[in-house]
Amino acid sequence: MQEFDLIHRYFDWPATHREVSVAVGDDAAILTPPPGEQLVVATDMLVAGRHFPESTAPDAIAHKALAVNLSDLAAMGATPLGFTLSLGLPETDSAWLESFSVGLRAAADRWGCDLVGGDTVRAPQLTLSITAFGSVARGTAIRRDGARAGDRLAVTGTVGDAALGLVVALQPDQVPSGLNDADRAYLLDRLDRPEPRLAAGQALCGQAAGLDISDGLLQDLGHLLDASGLSAEIDLDAIPLSPAARRWLDARPADIDRVLGGGDDYELLLALPPGLALEPAWDLTVIGRLDEAGPVGTVRERAGRPLPGRRGYNHFREEGA
Amino acid sequence: MQEFDLIHRYFDWPATHREVSVAVGDDAAILTPPPGEQLVVATDMLVAGRHFPESTAPDAIAHKALAVNLSDLAAMGATPLGFTLSLGLPETDSAWLESFSVGLRAAADRWGCDLVGGDTVRAPQLTLSITAFGSVARGTAIRRDGARAGDRLAVTGTVGDAALGLVVALQPDQVPSGLNDADRAYLLDRLDRPEPRLAAGQALCGQAAGLDISDGLLQDLGHLLDASGLSAEIDLDAIPLSPAARRWLDARPADIDRVLGGGDDYELLLALPPGLALEPAWDLTVIGRLDEAGPVGTVRERAGRPLPGRRGYNHFREEGA
Repeated sequence: MQEFDLIHRYFDWPATHREVSVAVGDDAAILTPPPGEQLVVATDMLVAGRHFPESTAPDAIAHKALAVNLSDLAAMGATPLGFTLSLGLPETDSAWLESFSVGLRAAADRWGCDLVGGDTVRAPQLTLSITAFGSVARGTAIRRDGARAGDRLAVTGTVGDAALGLVVALQPDQVPSGLNDADRAYLLDRLDRPEPRLAAGQALCGQAAGLDISDGLLQDLGHLLDASGLSAEIDLDAIPLSPAARRWLDARPADIDRVLGGGDDYELLLALPPGLALEPAWDLTVIGRLDEAGPVGTVRERAGRPLPGRRGYNHFREEGA
Repeated sequence: MQEFDLIHRYFDWPATHREVSVAVGDDAAILTPPPGEQLVVATDMLVAGRHFPESTAPDAIAHKALAVNLSDLAAMGATPLGFTLSLGLPETDSAWLESFSVGLRAAADRWGCDLVGGDTVRAPQLTLSITAFGSVARGTAIRRDGARAGDRLAVTGTVGDAALGLVVALQPDQVPSGLNDADRAYLLDRLDRPEPRLAAGQALCGQAAGLDISDGLLQDLGHLLDASGLSAEIDLDAIPLSPAARRWLDARPADIDRVLGGGDDYELLLALPPGLALEPAWDLTVIGRLDEAGPVGTVRERAGRPLPGRRGYNHFREEGA
């Protein structure tokens, strides 16, 4: 199949946003951000066998590749407009492309984000690079350098599910034997199909600092503290866990390291001023408080329990490079 | 080296545009397009061994990766604002990264385009994906569907140098023996260091239709004709050639196929209304005229000479996929 046919067949559907004037098909896309809004741009590259197991279903790969980028937009409080996709393929597999295309369009529709352009090339390993664009009212973006001493520290959803899902996918013999099939399926789904926290981010624009949890709770908390010049106290008992993760930790308490240090959650970690009322729809749990009581970047546990080092997923650390 | 250290060391320099508020270092970049302007977005992925020889110098790779994206912006008439870079690396090689970083910053400065964000991952083969953003006054972008019958067909610069440079790089035994070292160096430089035609594109906003020549003159002309519903007549004798390409064709006339069909020139192919005065600074040569005399998409040679089929570089055609 020729590149142009491939693009036309799998990646050319009508734009839904009126802000998008030229989408797939010209040298470049033309977007018109809403008046008075700033443009927010995020990019992530994913390589098969490294960022997702090679056996991952094509539609799940599409979902995740877009979700991780939109999570970055959510972490800035932005509303998605569009995205570009560069796709490196080892071969032209029509069944794979069809499933990928269906999954990508479903994800794009789900989050209101148009595919505006891209590139397809041959590569030795399946490689995806997405750049996503959104808009935010001027000066209201959620930044990691805007936290203040006294802010509450909160997370959306539950923490650690994706890290445990990765164990289910790659080291099934290390899954506690008491975990049932529904728990395993839930954790795998959290790994494969993260849901960007767009609504919470948009609602908290101009009222919060923060970032998304892609490298692991403790490592990303470190980024927030470093950028804002603060330290933090957290309460381990307050960390929100899914029922599956709770059952897992009941059986193997040492895996709290995976929960606090594992990446890929794509929840938001936010610093919220003391007076701000928390809407239930934002699905937030307060897990601690920011202060200046310790050296910048340090985290203490409320009851003095030990915390694993600032761990997280780092593509260039694993191999000791 | 850790990913964060790598980014800080090689890819974190101050933004020069006042439109860029948050560059490398947060979840996403924030850009403020000039009031009344539309945003133009282009993306290209390059894989070592496929889009450039593996032996290419790192600073030349950086130059070319940014240039091919800015050529897409030039082809829309846009002024560059910023770009993101996703970089898949087989290993962490400090000397390579240092040279790449120096080349990237020089290219970014040269074309006034800030690095606003990116991602670095491990990949089995060096892979780069750049997404570039620019702006253009509302409604004036140069599109490929805006050509009209009677328009002159023109190209910037010279055609075919990059295709001949690829022969110099990969099949040196096929270079005509009369070509001197300076010619070879010139053709290689045209392959490795394309210069996006930003000034010509910006000057012709709102006055032209067209695109850049990335797939080959005849193939890209086909895209212009298909999009605009026209046919064309061209004059082979009018095709602008560099002295090196002219010497090459004098020695081996059959290589006109490479000149007309080879990609990577990154010159602009433009449809210009009859009354428009051409400024010398745009470096334009009129090579034909658009009409409705033939079936849509067809090209005739003025003196009836044969033209090679619509050929060009197509990543998914080579291997018969």
